[in-house]
Amino acid sequence: MTDPLERLNRLPIRENLRGLRPYGAPQIDVPILLNVNENTHGVPEDVRSAIVEAVEGAVAGLNRYPDREFTVLREHLATYLGHGLTADNIWAANGSNEVLQHVLLAFGGPGRTALGFPPTYSMYPLLAGSTGTGYLTGSRDESFDLDARTTASEVAATGANIVFLCSPNNPTGTALPLEVVSEVYDAGEAAQAIVIVDEAYAEFSHSGTPSALELLPGRERLIVSRTMSKAFALAGARLGYLAAAPEIADALRLVRLPYHLSAITQATAVAALTHSAKLLANVDEIKRQRDRIVSGLTGMGLPVAPSDSNFVLFGGLDDPGAVWQDLLDAGVLIRDVGIPGHLRVTAGTQEETTTFLKALESLIRPRVS
Amino acid sequence: MTDPLERLNRLPIRENLRGLRPYGAPQIDVPILLNVNENTHGVPEDVRSAIVEAVEGAVAGLNRYPDREFTVLREHLATYLGHGLTADNIWAANGSNEVLQHVLLAFGGPGRTALGFPPTYSMYPLLAGSTGTGYLTGSRDESFDLDARTTASEVAATGANIVFLCSPNNPTGTALPLEVVSEVYDAGEAAQAIVIVDEAYAEFSHSGTPSALELLPGRERLIVSRTMSKAFALAGARLGYLAAAPEIADALRLVRLPYHLSAITQATAVAALTHSAKLLANVDEIKRQRDRIVSGLTGMGLPVAPSDSNFVLFGGLDDPGAVWQDLLDAGVLIRDVGIPGHLRVTAGTQEETTTFLKALESLIRPRVS
Repeated sequence: MTDPLERLNRLPIRENLRGLRPYGAPQIDVPILLNVNENTHGVPEDVRSAIVEAVEGAVAGLNRYPDREFTVLREHLATYLGHGLTADNIWAANGSNEVLQHVLLAFGGPGRTALGFPPTYSMYPLLAGSTGTGYLTGSRDESFDLDARTTASEVAATGANIVFLCSPNNPTGTALPLEVVSEVYDAGEAAQAIVIVDEAYAEFSHSGTPSALELLPGRERLIVSRTMSKAFALAGARLGYLAAAPEIADALRLVRLPYHLSAITQATAVAALTHSAKLLANVDEIKRQRDRIVSGLTGMGLPVAPSDSNFVLFGGLDDPGAVWQDLLDAGVLIRDVGIPGHLRVTAGTQEETTTFLKALESLIRPRVS
Repeated sequence: MTDPLERLNRLPIRENLRGLRPYGAPQIDVPILLNVNENTHGVPEDVRSAIVEAVEGAVAGLNRYPDREFTVLREHLATYLGHGLTADNIWAANGSNEVLQHVLLAFGGPGRTALGFPPTYSMYPLLAGSTGTGYLTGSRDESFDLDARTTASEVAATGANIVFLCSPNNPTGTALPLEVVSEVYDAGEAAQAIVIVDEAYAEFSHSGTPSALELLPGRERLIVSRTMSKAFALAGARLGYLAAAPEIADALRLVRLPYHLSAITQATAVAALTHSAKLLANVDEIKRQRDRIVSGLTGMGLPVAPSDSNFVLFGGLDDPGAVWQDLLDAGVLIRDVGIPGHLRVTAGTQEETTTFLKALESLIRPRVS
């Protein structure tokens, strides 16, 4: 049996891909999956029916290419976001990763750079790499926050063409004050930087947390990206989107593959948006479980980053790999995101959250540093 | 009202995108659509039901990310293709354009080149451009065919890293003898060229036309790409795929976006493949209509390229733009593919084909050159 990596290296793949392993968290079948920030509450029965009915309508015309402009879907997304946005402000693709890839294809590429602030979403450097965009990193403070003045000066100093601000940040969970976004935007003026605020988890923020959508008017280089994978409980449907000035959407039309969104994806997303109130009904419950995790872990003496997301990053672990494995043996899969001493857990249902907290508590006492 | 292009050019898009318009044929709503080589016969009622049932199953778990490896789908695609292929030989994505994009991301890129033979599928240079791959062109003879020796020598002379062979070729319709593929493959040995045989329309070939799938054993740089958009009548579902050595699939895993195929897309494609006999039942009828078009046009005195596809390219037109517009006014949309004196028409149902032929005949007499 040949080693797959050796077999692969006989092929003329790009040099920067040699030795890499495919990206993605392990897909392991255990009872409690709290590793990839899915919405574990599932899709309510009546929304499922609405989706199936919408798909039934789309299947009748499946021999035809879909609406390349996905106009109806863009209208529904604009209505959902509010803030005076219209379909012209909206772009969408198969997951927010593809949305970000489109941005990099249009505004990044060889000779250009993107700036991220680790620890942050691990796909940013990979998307930069696959589009030939240089990837630079800025700094966070000890509590993983971004200071407006420091961040803005890093944006100006690097002259980055694209800036990734993730709010709430994955994997740390914290939302960004709008002041940071606006100062970063101004600091990117000289390089005409595209500033992306990745709000994949925005719906889980504490009430009163403002969205960067508020900053869009008058800022044509600002992009706010979202996803239906998390709050909408549709990770399996692959629908990411963004709001921005109409000319940003025009630019992304130049790099999208024609008919990139299937007729079924469009129908599924429209049906879900039509029933958004029902789909989002579980968000408050997930936030309660998230807050339970924060207080439970704090009670165990573990340092926890404040979270506006459906997940919690916690530290204080001597051997996070061992804790991860012990939890897995107990039937609970969480995520080792590679930050020394830390692990990340998704807020599940009440029962899942209880099981996680009890399992961790029984493990943690002998391990706390 | 600001001109969209002017508005767009204020943004810092990549230089090579400036002035471009989004790719894609006009999406116009007329009674008879024979412009983008769709299968106009539609999806049979019982296959529609099977797809809806499969989607219903997938929707139950839509809050979870899909199987990143789409294993069940790869197994079904391998079974459909036969030739001793297994799931390890298969890769798939949202349309064959994304499949080809993955190949370019893995094996092309800055400093590398792809070679195509125009007139051929118009996405090849666009996909090369968006991945930073240089695009070179080889030559066809006067009847749009590729001569094995000439083509092989062009492959060797250019040292191209990727070679696109489209068979049957779009927009000319002609299938390629396997001899051309094998000689091109051998000629690419020195540059370790990846040779892609794009068989999007293979199911419409005249009986006895061999597939390049026969050549896969022992050729680890050979890729045969297919789609479910045409013969399977699933253009709206966006499912393209390829067969190749397992290490090719391993390479593409390094550049795909995680979870690129939605759970619904996977379920739809598996349901369709389970009913492939019923879906493909219309292929013979479409071939009959294709042959009717060839003899009808020949009878009108128009030169026609022999076609193994579900479309026909025909020449002899003084003013193809005027013929295209007159047909559109008569309710029949076909395609101006930009070849002087030529137009391309998709084989439709018997009624659609008859309407097209009658409309063209009434127009053509005063226009034949």
